Amino acid sequence: MMHLYDYWESGNGYKVRMMLHRRGLPFERTELDILKGETRTADFLARNPNGRIPYLVLDDGTGLAESNAILWYLAEGTPWLPDEKLGRARLLQWMFFEQYSHEPFIAVLRFWNFANKLGEHSADEVTAKRAGGYAALDVMEAHLAGRAFFVGERESIADLALYAYTHVAHEGGFELGGHPAVTAWLDRIGGAPGHVPISEVRGLPAAEGDRGAGSS
Amino acid sequence: MMHLYDYWESGNGYKVRMMLHRRGLPFERTELDILKGETRTADFLARNPNGRIPYLVLDDGTGLAESNAILWYLAEGTPWLPDEKLGRARLLQWMFFEQYSHEPFIAVLRFWNFANKLGEHSADEVTAKRAGGYAALDVMEAHLAGRAFFVGERESIADLALYAYTHVAHEGGFELGGHPAVTAWLDRIGGAPGHVPISEVRGLPAAEGDRGAGSS
Repeated sequence: MMHLYDYWESGNGYKVRMMLHRRGLPFERTELDILKGETRTADFLARNPNGRIPYLVLDDGTGLAESNAILWYLAEGTPWLPDEKLGRARLLQWMFFEQYSHEPFIAVLRFWNFANKLGEHSADEVTAKRAGGYAALDVMEAHLAGRAFFVGERESIADLALYAYTHVAHEGGFELGGHPAVTAWLDRIGGAPGHVPISEVRGLPAAEGDRGAGSS
Repeated sequence: MMHLYDYWESGNGYKVRMMLHRRGLPFERTELDILKGETRTADFLARNPNGRIPYLVLDDGTGLAESNAILWYLAEGTPWLPDEKLGRARLLQWMFFEQYSHEPFIAVLRFWNFANKLGEHSADEVTAKRAGGYAALDVMEAHLAGRAFFVGERESIADLALYAYTHVAHEGGFELGGHPAVTAWLDRIGGAPGHVPISEVRGLPAAEGDRGAGSS
């Protein structure tokens, strides 16, 4: 059975949990508390030298790091990934946008808030993070106007990747009132059959997983 | 012919230039000076709403953003991308590592240095960027010990993605003396047939491109 090293509060971890649940793939899970340094122990660094979750160990013991690379692995050969070359590149474009232009602003402000670290950063730093986060939301808003999903005509892993931290952006102080297309898209993804909330941190037992296999 | 919007100093732009030259794919090129705000004009934002280079316009007028997504597009169906699923996911793992754990430290210190912006940032910020950059180099060093390339037994787009800013890390004040495997790998990539330096900012005329086509 696959084994996920994860942290409940992490949107990056949630991406992988969401995908495993949506695909009905059985997995076990180990919680590593980032705030207690549990991703920086010698044991975990021996698995993932970059010291970050999520980290997924496959059935054969192979480990994979980086949330969006794990999403890709779990999506290959399924409808979560377009067949054609341009669609695949476009999907990666949005996933790299997420890690470079979205997460470092929206997720980081939420984390500073959550971990009581806002006071450790200057007003200028917080202002720059805020501006960067809204710039990302503006790019998403313009793209989603008149579109249901980020790439093509159905949900893809680009939607899951961007949903993870966008749906909790308010926990970092972002207001989505001026972003109606983003808000409608959040409702669409969050309302999909089989969707699990970020608070769902159980693994998926084999029997339960098998019931759902192939459902996506 | 493909058209690349680019900036000569950008390692992200260089990734795409390198790949186009290595594959012998003809392209034209427009220089946009980031320091003069040329990626934030109404004209360019109408093309790429995220306002960043590189931005590649394909023969049919379709545009693609995000350096690593463009690399992927140019690599599909070639030996620059592994055929098997795990190798492809591993390659993406290193490319997301590059954009999240490497570029924001190593490229940003170089840019601050280059653009005379070091003085605008606190000593704490610079120290954190320095530590993050060396942490990325340490992860690379551990991985490359005993390996010639990042994924598998041959050059892939993961190598090009990581080469772009690593080979100019010294321009941001990083010393690679303690990273012999990284240094040997840099020599290996930089010494490959058809390699072009970051200072090569010409496009590739059709005739010249055709001569090299398929050489990789």
